[in-house]
Amino acid sequence: MRSTMNSFTHQEIRQLCRQGKFQSPTPGFASGYVQANLVVLPKSVAFDFLLFCHRNPKPCPLLDVTEVGDAEPRMVAPGSDLRTDLPRYCVFRHGELIEEVTDIKELWRDDFVAFLIGCSFSFETALLSAGVPVRHIEEKKNVPMYKTNLSCVSAGVFSSPLVVSMRPLLPADAIRAVDITSRFPKSHGAPVHLGDESAIAISDINSPDFGDAVTIRKGEIPVFWACGVTTQTAILQAKPEIAITHAPGHMFITDMKDESF
Amino acid sequence: MRSTMNSFTHQEIRQLCRQGKFQSPTPGFASGYVQANLVVLPKSVAFDFLLFCHRNPKPCPLLDVTEVGDAEPRMVAPGSDLRTDLPRYCVFRHGELIEEVTDIKELWRDDFVAFLIGCSFSFETALLSAGVPVRHIEEKKNVPMYKTNLSCVSAGVFSSPLVVSMRPLLPADAIRAVDITSRFPKSHGAPVHLGDESAIAISDINSPDFGDAVTIRKGEIPVFWACGVTTQTAILQAKPEIAITHAPGHMFITDMKDESF
Repeated sequence: MRSTMNSFTHQEIRQLCRQGKFQSPTPGFASGYVQANLVVLPKSVAFDFLLFCHRNPKPCPLLDVTEVGDAEPRMVAPGSDLRTDLPRYCVFRHGELIEEVTDIKELWRDDFVAFLIGCSFSFETALLSAGVPVRHIEEKKNVPMYKTNLSCVSAGVFSSPLVVSMRPLLPADAIRAVDITSRFPKSHGAPVHLGDESAIAISDINSPDFGDAVTIRKGEIPVFWACGVTTQTAILQAKPEIAITHAPGHMFITDMKDESF
Repeated sequence: MRSTMNSFTHQEIRQLCRQGKFQSPTPGFASGYVQANLVVLPKSVAFDFLLFCHRNPKPCPLLDVTEVGDAEPRMVAPGSDLRTDLPRYCVFRHGELIEEVTDIKELWRDDFVAFLIGCSFSFETALLSAGVPVRHIEEKKNVPMYKTNLSCVSAGVFSSPLVVSMRPLLPADAIRAVDITSRFPKSHGAPVHLGDESAIAISDINSPDFGDAVTIRKGEIPVFWACGVTTQTAILQAKPEIAITHAPGHMFITDMKDESF
């Protein structure tokens, strides 16, 4: 199925999601199109969350924010519907994961605001195009992610330690990766740290807090980027009455091309 | 008085404002420090306004946004107080200018949010340093500003035509000005238009909608930048129950250095 699916356009994938026919992780699909993290929150905490994203653009680069009650992201995918066009959603109540669902039509409320936040897929595509290896893709794993002692700037009810993703690179590739990813501010931008992981309070590089451990080869150094999972930890800490996100890896596919970044 | 005042630091100017001893326009004072537009709005429309600024970063580059009820801009001037540390304020009710005051201590409410928005002074300093002339400064006038047929992206109750400021330049200087100001995204960034003013629906370049007309010399072309006055037209159109801004030219002086942009 996947090889056929792979040839569908970004619009076709969204349509299949809407029909309940596509419920898989999105990496590798609609190649060349920007994928996004979704966060849905009630208006009562939407100002605080928008401010949190504004103050922390590296982990939370905003691609689009809907008007109150509107499920259509008019900037990045006009005509789409965020209640149905993702393969899978997580529903949190008071900071606890309650259920995973394949649409949120029944849950949607007039006071909901949807935030679409850039993810690392865009810069990973650029790294691969430039011949910089991306280990977790080579090893067919999820990227390793770690909580750090770096703090985000808090905003209202939202605060969080910075969560980072890690890709091991030879020093020359690390330099090229800094150069390349600094041109992708809407996809987390330049790294936040490289080298000694203990400097940002990661005690065991082989035991990530989220995702999978990957091989670090001789001569390679770990390179750390701000990660969108930071928004999830902020939601868990803030415990809003309700919050809905994409299920991990089940992203929203926009109309934006990677190169538009 | 002005020559003595001129030597005061940014912190001393804020202190003098707080004591009611400085009520003048701020251009030329605390040289080298970033000055900012102020907009204060109640929480009920703060999400819409934050979204408006996020969607329109050229006219509305956000320098700082306070927590609900907090008058201290902790990012750009910790320890300062936005209720007292500007020389003059305008108070709008339902979109109408009601009064000008020298502090807003009595008006401040627990549900107020303050927005500090970059202004063109920082990039003008950079232009002058590079030897690019700035006509309204040469002629000791206010910069000419015009309403255009370019629309901002609306957000909730806020919408506005884009207001632009104009500086006439020789083509070679216009090219340098594009290069220089594009490096100042928090100070309106690169121009939005140059040359034929009718293309953006300005009917008479010698009759600006705000500010003063300036001389355009033979061989010069008008160069147009997005202008912070756009926020004021957005407030006039939205007619929030209350809004407070700096009085024109009476800006808030931050702790940020121009070169940090």
